[in-house]
Amino acid sequence: MSTAPTDQDTTYHSLVDGAALAGTAGSIRAVNPATNGEGETEFTLLDDDQVTKATEAAEQAFAAYRTITPQQRSAFLTAAAAKIEASGEQIITTAMAETGLPQQRLQGELARTVNQLRLFAKVAETGDHLGVRIEPALPDRKPLPRPDLRQRKLALGPVAVFGASNFPLAFSVAGGDTASALAAGCPVVFKAHNAHPGTSQIVGQAICAAVAEQGLPSGVFSLVYGHGKEVGQALVRDPRIKAVGFTGSRSGGTALMETAAARSEPIPVYAEMSSINPIFVLPSALEKSEELASGFVTSLTGSAGQLCTAPGLLFVPEGPAGDAFVEQISQQLSETTGSTMLTPGICASRKRGEETLAELPGVAQVARGAEGSGENAPAAAVYSTDVSTFLSTAALSEEIFGSVCLVIRYANAAELTEAVTGLEGQLTATLHLDEENADDVAVARNLLPHLELKAGRILVGGWPTGVDVGDAIVHGGPFPATSDGRSTSVGTLAIDRWLRPVAYQNLPEALQPQEVRESNPWHLTRRINGEYQLASRK
Amino acid sequence: MSTAPTDQDTTYHSLVDGAALAGTAGSIRAVNPATNGEGETEFTLLDDDQVTKATEAAEQAFAAYRTITPQQRSAFLTAAAAKIEASGEQIITTAMAETGLPQQRLQGELARTVNQLRLFAKVAETGDHLGVRIEPALPDRKPLPRPDLRQRKLALGPVAVFGASNFPLAFSVAGGDTASALAAGCPVVFKAHNAHPGTSQIVGQAICAAVAEQGLPSGVFSLVYGHGKEVGQALVRDPRIKAVGFTGSRSGGTALMETAAARSEPIPVYAEMSSINPIFVLPSALEKSEELASGFVTSLTGSAGQLCTAPGLLFVPEGPAGDAFVEQISQQLSETTGSTMLTPGICASRKRGEETLAELPGVAQVARGAEGSGENAPAAAVYSTDVSTFLSTAALSEEIFGSVCLVIRYANAAELTEAVTGLEGQLTATLHLDEENADDVAVARNLLPHLELKAGRILVGGWPTGVDVGDAIVHGGPFPATSDGRSTSVGTLAIDRWLRPVAYQNLPEALQPQEVRESNPWHLTRRINGEYQLASRK
Repeated sequence: MSTAPTDQDTTYHSLVDGAALAGTAGSIRAVNPATNGEGETEFTLLDDDQVTKATEAAEQAFAAYRTITPQQRSAFLTAAAAKIEASGEQIITTAMAETGLPQQRLQGELARTVNQLRLFAKVAETGDHLGVRIEPALPDRKPLPRPDLRQRKLALGPVAVFGASNFPLAFSVAGGDTASALAAGCPVVFKAHNAHPGTSQIVGQAICAAVAEQGLPSGVFSLVYGHGKEVGQALVRDPRIKAVGFTGSRSGGTALMETAAARSEPIPVYAEMSSINPIFVLPSALEKSEELASGFVTSLTGSAGQLCTAPGLLFVPEGPAGDAFVEQISQQLSETTGSTMLTPGICASRKRGEETLAELPGVAQVARGAEGSGENAPAAAVYSTDVSTFLSTAALSEEIFGSVCLVIRYANAAELTEAVTGLEGQLTATLHLDEENADDVAVARNLLPHLELKAGRILVGGWPTGVDVGDAIVHGGPFPATSDGRSTSVGTLAIDRWLRPVAYQNLPEALQPQEVRESNPWHLTRRINGEYQLASRK
Repeated sequence: MSTAPTDQDTTYHSLVDGAALAGTAGSIRAVNPATNGEGETEFTLLDDDQVTKATEAAEQAFAAYRTITPQQRSAFLTAAAAKIEASGEQIITTAMAETGLPQQRLQGELARTVNQLRLFAKVAETGDHLGVRIEPALPDRKPLPRPDLRQRKLALGPVAVFGASNFPLAFSVAGGDTASALAAGCPVVFKAHNAHPGTSQIVGQAICAAVAEQGLPSGVFSLVYGHGKEVGQALVRDPRIKAVGFTGSRSGGTALMETAAARSEPIPVYAEMSSINPIFVLPSALEKSEELASGFVTSLTGSAGQLCTAPGLLFVPEGPAGDAFVEQISQQLSETTGSTMLTPGICASRKRGEETLAELPGVAQVARGAEGSGENAPAAAVYSTDVSTFLSTAALSEEIFGSVCLVIRYANAAELTEAVTGLEGQLTATLHLDEENADDVAVARNLLPHLELKAGRILVGGWPTGVDVGDAIVHGGPFPATSDGRSTSVGTLAIDRWLRPVAYQNLPEALQPQEVRESNPWHLTRRINGEYQLASRK
């Protein structure tokens, strides 16, 4: 195992099957987006054939890894969390230089990442996701006897995970996809994002160290560096890979979906891609417009607008109260300074997106902040249009990743419904209303059934940025928010993505998996004859 | 609504949005496969544009249908079961003429169909599939307060269902896909199989009558006749359709998968397609070879071998005991007479499949029955080969739909493992062993982890034909057994296919859906802070 990437003269490699593997497809260096300066550390890139070593190791590890006890799996995830935490200082320093994200944000993200691993350690140990269902034999049933049937869920197999640029920790090497797949019993081959290779190396080493410490097969986790598209496609085509997790752009996600669907054995792809997270301000919410404007500006500009749930559409009533609200936004936004974006490429793409937006007929700029110091720190900006322009201009539904928002002025509730019906799938939708105001409540009640069909999470009040990682969260939504609206990439339900049910008919107990045995050795909550029987936990 | 198709002079039509809709794309008549004679009744076929009327009606109905109470949904499914049962005699007579299946088999299938509807009525009423998870707000949590988060599952939207030829009732108009989708809250547009249009008409009328009786929107269920491929593709392309259920051939299923993946909004396809259901006879099981041979012949020839779970591969040890077993099969099979297959086309395809098989090098016929009287009643046949031929000949893994089985003689346990590793995904895998024999048990224990990765249901003893519809069954499996190994098309878990989760953050109770309200008005079992709280049911 290599040392950590703060030693500037060292070259770092992919971590494959428990060892560093020098890539033969060139190398990259991290770029500090605040200066556009290259780091001194080199990271070698694997070619397609080398990636196969990781998938072979994952396949090899799968047989043993999927059958360890819930306690062993939980101990492994807990150990990984502890080792990442122990490298916390180094992780934060490296991530700051590689992503331009501020220290406090990264500290919060690190805490979220290790808490997420510990949450999945608990999930793995509890075993509710195993979904055990038992129907004992009924030999005397008429007209036919009932066989003994026992069902449990099983890990799909090795999973390829692609991390996001915008969460170098919580949606990266040890992020939610990795944590939930490992908790399910799937080995993970993680494709590092080239925007934060050093951060990835430290976290990858921590996971590998936990694998070794816990005596697990070394193929349980591999970290691979490579040219994004080539290696990504090779991974998804690899017959040993049985599912894919991805967080990134719509074009990147749909390319993986196509590759996965074209395999001789198609596999599921869970891609979280694109969302513009509409906010609906109902008339009476404007009574607290000052506070609302301030909340909006904070949500829009946090992390340079580079959050999957950042508000991209703000529906505001026409008329003087709405005008005043937009004026307050303009005032408050003018006092903001742009912060550094993740990469020069993301910043360039955001600038192009804003230029396209600004030139569209019927769209006008209504608010603008100041550029930040250093490179890649564009000014936050808000534009405005009306519902009919929005509905007739497809480009206005495209996400601009960064702190750009479109205000849509609406005339009445009917226009709002029409706009919602015209939306694509979203991660979130937010309503601001006065809960005491009967008109607002009536409009909300009418909108909700439409919003439910468009979004994975619906908020009343507050802002969609900030995702609480727990048991009830949904971070998902209909296409193109994700490739598969039947799932979430955050929270305990995310584990369901990596499982499939298997039924056992008339197996003697000695041949049954532990999960379904009469004696319930793992103390699982199970369904017996269709009724839950709660585990007697210690 | 039209009358029933026993009136021979009447022409029948699709049932769309609660009324008969005469198709403009020609018409078909049923063919009696025992005589190849055409029925006198005509069924008009819809063109692509007419099919849109059904999807529009389904979309229209969705808003109201998905929000009715569990009791209302349960009452509707129960009413549909009763109305189908009331037409039982007419259904059986019509189905016998259209499918060549014997009366007793169809009576059993009818009972299964109405029981399945009643099972899903109970599922709908219980509401466990709603998957409610609640995490109440924790305003004092550090470092950040926790919002109130409430999650429930929601129906995906209108579903297109394609019925199978081989189960004119249980996998057809009111089959498992329809029952589970309706129970989930999804309107159904059912594409009738052209092999049993009259049976479809009677069952479709019964469901439409239940829709009307229960005061539900008429678009909740439509039955459409059409040219299979054209209308099928049009349905799956239709933007109002949000998921697809299909039972049929591999080519038919993969064609729908491709169409669904190519939509601007890709949708899930649940296709149950192709399985050869391997049976593994371990050495000591041969001590009861007479009984085993008899069970095998019954499983192979039942319903003319036209069951998704019919045994297509039989692994038998090399050596004298295995030889004797194959001889017993040969003896018993020679006493069987072929029964009528479902359609002339299916019979022709089975004959072609057998011819191809017979000509493959290393494959020899070892057993054959007699042809049946009348048309389309081929003799059952068993061929034999060895493991290395099986593994090196891709054609031997292709399903031949009908009573044709391939015996594979194996030398030892290692060859068996190798053969399993070379299998494609299957609905079932069956082991026959002597549970008292340590060698058999050791071989089984070694095979099971491999079988789990290949099949949705694993049996010890017995035969895979005969699927028990309940809470613990899995009728699914990795591709190509199904398009999506994460699901089952039979049993209560099938409802999960039509749902997606939505989270509600900080909604005032008055705006929350009933499922997640603190007062739990629907008496649901829910997860509160990650722990199940069982419903207090009446």
